[in-house]
Amino acid sequence: MKNPPSLDQLIAALKVLPGVGPKSAQRMAFHLLQKDRGGADKLARALDHALLNLRHCQRCHTFSESPLCNVCADAERRQDLLCVVEMPADLLMLEQTRCYDGLYFVLMGRLSPMDGIGPKDIDLEKLIARAVDGVVQEVIIATNFTAEGEVTAHLISEMLQAHGLRVSRIARGMPVGGELENVDPGTLAQAMYERRSVS
Amino acid sequence: MKNPPSLDQLIAALKVLPGVGPKSAQRMAFHLLQKDRGGADKLARALDHALLNLRHCQRCHTFSESPLCNVCADAERRQDLLCVVEMPADLLMLEQTRCYDGLYFVLMGRLSPMDGIGPKDIDLEKLIARAVDGVVQEVIIATNFTAEGEVTAHLISEMLQAHGLRVSRIARGMPVGGELENVDPGTLAQAMYERRSVS
Repeated sequence: MKNPPSLDQLIAALKVLPGVGPKSAQRMAFHLLQKDRGGADKLARALDHALLNLRHCQRCHTFSESPLCNVCADAERRQDLLCVVEMPADLLMLEQTRCYDGLYFVLMGRLSPMDGIGPKDIDLEKLIARAVDGVVQEVIIATNFTAEGEVTAHLISEMLQAHGLRVSRIARGMPVGGELENVDPGTLAQAMYERRSVS
Repeated sequence: MKNPPSLDQLIAALKVLPGVGPKSAQRMAFHLLQKDRGGADKLARALDHALLNLRHCQRCHTFSESPLCNVCADAERRQDLLCVVEMPADLLMLEQTRCYDGLYFVLMGRLSPMDGIGPKDIDLEKLIARAVDGVVQEVIIATNFTAEGEVTAHLISEMLQAHGLRVSRIARGMPVGGELENVDPGTLAQAMYERRSVS
């Protein structure tokens, strides 16, 4: 006696989710099939819809359904400020603080030499190309204050400064080792206001 | 600036999974869209396939792709023994012990008065109808030894005995408070061998 193939396939498929092992995957499969078939169908549809419709914004690289995301398409925002963040969630946190009206570049990751993630993997060339458009005057680096975020910030600063750009880093008003996603908006706003030029 | 609708829908849909809150759902969505689009597609397909193909076995109620599951369709197994378990995972654990060659009935749940889950919700009528077929001589109750599993075992025993059936309970060789899913096969086999008649 083994599980039916379609059940085993579902359990295996659920293990693609980060943090989900064999036991959780089995529990999730039983829950969906037994208690929430509507939710399972909604999830399948949402996955299809997202895979079909979500692309990267051509300018800032965040997730977007249109070629340009809302922020990049907004002519009211300051075009001379470019803020570099690791993930779309960081961008949303900064937007919630309402203290920044420039544009963004989303790395969709960070350098992580320990995990073999180098400059090529997070497409820094695209950032440079975006930053040297002649309109951007200052690049504000808002990667996390984790080890990986700091390494990323350091490399980006050097690359951008080599192109003659003014580079700043949001202030270390954030707790050391903290991640943008988990900080309160007030602290994050303070860090934005107190950004300092990279010497 | 907000998330694109298809991203928000995916995050909301992932929250149907047990144990997944807003932050995990967001992390999962980013992971799937950024790092594992193939996995996301596989998950959507597996959900569709499982929803389409998995039904309950007509006799034992476990998940099955055919009207009768492998166990119920196996004429070699003892037809006079019926073992009642809470979930399909429990059935698989018992099969792994290779100490039981009778049939099963899977409750697909347990009584849980605290959560408002009563006899109607786990379809005990179906169990009774299955057990009084005239072929079954003994019903072995192998619900978990948790509070809910014990309450369930108690009620089932009374109902089945009222129909004149011989009822036994797997031995308390299992650790108190333990769940079948997490026990080693040897202990579970012992509990099966030492099952005792309900007085």
